[in-house]
Amino acid sequence: MFSRVNYISRAFYRTSSVARSAGVVHGRTRLSVTKYPELKRDSRFQSLNDKHIDYFRAVLGENSVVYDKDPESDAIVHYNTDWFNLYRGTSSLVLFPSDTAQVSSILKYCNENRLAVVPQGGNTGVSGGAVPVFDEIIIKMSRMDRIRKIDQVSGIAVVDAGVILENLDNAVSEHGYMVPIDLGAKGSCHIGGNISTNAGGLRYVRYGSLHGNVLGLEVVLPDGTVLENLSTLRKDNTGYDLKQLFIGSEGTLGIVTGVSILTPQRAKATNLSLIGLDSYEDIQKAFVRAKADLSDILSAFEFWDKDCIEVVSEKMLPGVQFPLSSEKPYEFYALLETQGSRKEHDEAKLESYLESLLEDNIAKDGVVSQDIKQTQSLWAWREMIPEGMTKYGPAITYDVSMDIPLLYKLVMDTRAHFEKKGMIGPDKDYVKLIGFGHVGDGNLHIMAATNRNDYDLQKQLDDFVYTWTAKHSGSVSAEHGIGISKIGYLPYSKKKPVLDLMAKLKAQIDPRGIMNPYKIFANKYILSALGCKLRMDVYTGTRQSRE
Amino acid sequence: MFSRVNYISRAFYRTSSVARSAGVVHGRTRLSVTKYPELKRDSRFQSLNDKHIDYFRAVLGENSVVYDKDPESDAIVHYNTDWFNLYRGTSSLVLFPSDTAQVSSILKYCNENRLAVVPQGGNTGVSGGAVPVFDEIIIKMSRMDRIRKIDQVSGIAVVDAGVILENLDNAVSEHGYMVPIDLGAKGSCHIGGNISTNAGGLRYVRYGSLHGNVLGLEVVLPDGTVLENLSTLRKDNTGYDLKQLFIGSEGTLGIVTGVSILTPQRAKATNLSLIGLDSYEDIQKAFVRAKADLSDILSAFEFWDKDCIEVVSEKMLPGVQFPLSSEKPYEFYALLETQGSRKEHDEAKLESYLESLLEDNIAKDGVVSQDIKQTQSLWAWREMIPEGMTKYGPAITYDVSMDIPLLYKLVMDTRAHFEKKGMIGPDKDYVKLIGFGHVGDGNLHIMAATNRNDYDLQKQLDDFVYTWTAKHSGSVSAEHGIGISKIGYLPYSKKKPVLDLMAKLKAQIDPRGIMNPYKIFANKYILSALGCKLRMDVYTGTRQSRE
Repeated sequence: MFSRVNYISRAFYRTSSVARSAGVVHGRTRLSVTKYPELKRDSRFQSLNDKHIDYFRAVLGENSVVYDKDPESDAIVHYNTDWFNLYRGTSSLVLFPSDTAQVSSILKYCNENRLAVVPQGGNTGVSGGAVPVFDEIIIKMSRMDRIRKIDQVSGIAVVDAGVILENLDNAVSEHGYMVPIDLGAKGSCHIGGNISTNAGGLRYVRYGSLHGNVLGLEVVLPDGTVLENLSTLRKDNTGYDLKQLFIGSEGTLGIVTGVSILTPQRAKATNLSLIGLDSYEDIQKAFVRAKADLSDILSAFEFWDKDCIEVVSEKMLPGVQFPLSSEKPYEFYALLETQGSRKEHDEAKLESYLESLLEDNIAKDGVVSQDIKQTQSLWAWREMIPEGMTKYGPAITYDVSMDIPLLYKLVMDTRAHFEKKGMIGPDKDYVKLIGFGHVGDGNLHIMAATNRNDYDLQKQLDDFVYTWTAKHSGSVSAEHGIGISKIGYLPYSKKKPVLDLMAKLKAQIDPRGIMNPYKIFANKYILSALGCKLRMDVYTGTRQSRE
Repeated sequence: MFSRVNYISRAFYRTSSVARSAGVVHGRTRLSVTKYPELKRDSRFQSLNDKHIDYFRAVLGENSVVYDKDPESDAIVHYNTDWFNLYRGTSSLVLFPSDTAQVSSILKYCNENRLAVVPQGGNTGVSGGAVPVFDEIIIKMSRMDRIRKIDQVSGIAVVDAGVILENLDNAVSEHGYMVPIDLGAKGSCHIGGNISTNAGGLRYVRYGSLHGNVLGLEVVLPDGTVLENLSTLRKDNTGYDLKQLFIGSEGTLGIVTGVSILTPQRAKATNLSLIGLDSYEDIQKAFVRAKADLSDILSAFEFWDKDCIEVVSEKMLPGVQFPLSSEKPYEFYALLETQGSRKEHDEAKLESYLESLLEDNIAKDGVVSQDIKQTQSLWAWREMIPEGMTKYGPAITYDVSMDIPLLYKLVMDTRAHFEKKGMIGPDKDYVKLIGFGHVGDGNLHIMAATNRNDYDLQKQLDDFVYTWTAKHSGSVSAEHGIGISKIGYLPYSKKKPVLDLMAKLKAQIDPRGIMNPYKIFANKYILSALGCKLRMDVYTGTRQSRE
């Protein structure tokens, strides 16, 4: 039966309409400021004038400057709007630098003239961090797309920040290597954007954090200084590891223009297995055993709950039987991937692992994919969950992390809380509520479909989910960053002394605050430390830091 | 023949006398300031008086304060002197805090009273970073040795910074995990010291950098603020990843008091193989193939040159036959380790890998260890190389990194340079010069034994090795840090804008400069940025930054 699953391209991310309707009114995404009316443009920033445009045209050339006084014009609205159509700004200017020197000239000029900027990579982020809020100048990195160097012995690649992740993967694959991150958006996202977001992705459990894999960065600071730290060394203990500050800082400290990254050996064999289980307890047991039995080859360990099955079979693949069919769905499912250097060894390990799960009654059933097509189908199935949810109504999604034993408790507690209020069910406020995620990383995606486009429904869920997460020492953003979408919730995961030091470093490195303003730091607490006038009282006034 | 190799404990680090004689004069290590006469005590710092001592006794208790006005007294000289007897300061005071609150009280007081401090872990560092230069107060972390929490599902351990690495490894091993770093000094070094140094170690090629494995830190800042960022989350993208700043900052920004670290699954099987090769070209070929064929299980790839064989067989194990015997030694040797979850799979992979090396004439010969005793013997053999060198005369050692293809060229060029000057050979200035290291990490240890205790011999070698390394975009400190031993050479590996930003951050976080002064930053360039009066013209005036 498993072979009957249809193959669906993993490229759906680029062409589907996940959540794209939520913020759209009259054919245009609503302006971000209509959602966050407390956000005011920082009056210290200059507005664009013809003299500025002339400068940029002189430095970059006519073809590298897109300028239109109407930010809704076709030439420019695309860059003002995030991929999910949730956030939109009103910039009139997009710059396309071709090299690091041009980025340096742009920033130096903007800093001297107090012009705010927002760096933009592939614009596939999900927290609205890569689009302007007001009239920030968009610095689009797509023309900086050169592969500078690949070392065949070490697998270290040095590239421009605007290289698309998939192109980088293809380039290193010619030498037997692979990029250590893999995302649904790999055909569009830039490696520089991945680094600025500190993207996680599907194989994090195996290849780990960009903090470990990135060896060096070339960064242009707000004053135009080029921080040339593009080391190709695996080990270098000469002073502070400054590149780390820019990994995950979402373009608020400088613009990453060059990247040196260690790429691991490309796997010779990939195996995938799907198992059905009765409880989240069993998921944890299966995970612990996978680490013991498959430690050297385990490359992904995903899970989802029963309702996810319904979502995909009702909305995405009606009539197609789920690969692991039984009279009724199991309570939980896990998708395990192995990547190794010898297929027969990996298969033997995976099979005896699965046998032991069934013998010990941890798993109820399981299948192993037989070929690349089945493998891709199973992954595609997993990736259809979010899209399926959006077909019930405007969908709200979370990206939280916590200690693994707590992961699913959040879903159960959320469900119980809103059921008690009579708000969950068909025709109710929250039509559907599901949980899925990356067990190995302690990363949960909880997702709700609502019956109407109502910001208050999001706010109620935000409050419950983030308060619960903070109470259990979790993170309100595991891998997507803060951007604009979670600016009010940053203090839920970071205490005052930590926020203090972040603000100090921001003020030190970007004293005029031109780098991606209104992101990460746009809350009262941090802004006051920066001496900014912006306030977000509605987001922070009634909420206490975890201090 | 291989089984004839005697077993030698890996614990020799703790009891042997590697290089311990080099700085010793009249029974005491020479004071650091006699080696660096340009270093002057910073006159902004207060000197200790009775009022200070009373305060510390009141806060910590009588038994946690060791005070002796004579810094050469038996009570205190041990803490003033580094493990290698190369550096010695003149502190009169050692404090032993028991918890984070006490560390906070100490630093707050020291900051207010402008008293300089030096944090000290297990004092096993090799760059002199953990001992005072003048009268800095020594803050000894050995009483902060609690295992706070171990999560059995995730393998995440939260511990005090003063826990000895081997004790941490033992604690997590009870749950099937292992620490991701392994060092000769594991029986003495503290995990907090490992983090402050960003220690690398033997299995870096498999488990990677502490920047990837450390999940959170609790750090006391110079003003006494406790930066509680002891996350147990694998993924957390809420603002800047501040902990990264403290990894490798050698105690110059604050004191690490607590550590959250991800520990990998303990391997069920370990295999070790020794091969003989004709050229460094072949070493590289063997390494690339090991990554392809053993990628999922390769845990170490060490190499050494022919002369290392002589060193160990002449000075350490006379009469014992080297495991890979042939009429004459091969030009190079490589030691490969695998760690995996199933012994028979690992052995099959390793054997077919070795066969392919022999078939393709890449390796000339090879053995695989048959049991744990042989494995330990081979590792012990590798670890005897540095000790053997010290038996020829005062030894000088380097810890540089560069692109892998260049590694051994440095050894050859160094040898050629000093041979041309007639300075290498028995009875000459440099009695012996060898190269060995971690191929997978691009990390070379070049080592010379000299015929007399003469600082000029070190300086000549320093200049040649570091200039060559800088010219080839390498690092003058791959894993040992800058400490005091390389303060003049920091600009060889970092350009001015990078040093500028380091200095800015140092000034921001430690504005009074009390944290481990005279380390990392004690060179003219950075000190002037800090507004300090210290100068090291002799080290920096004649040397240009790579800018």
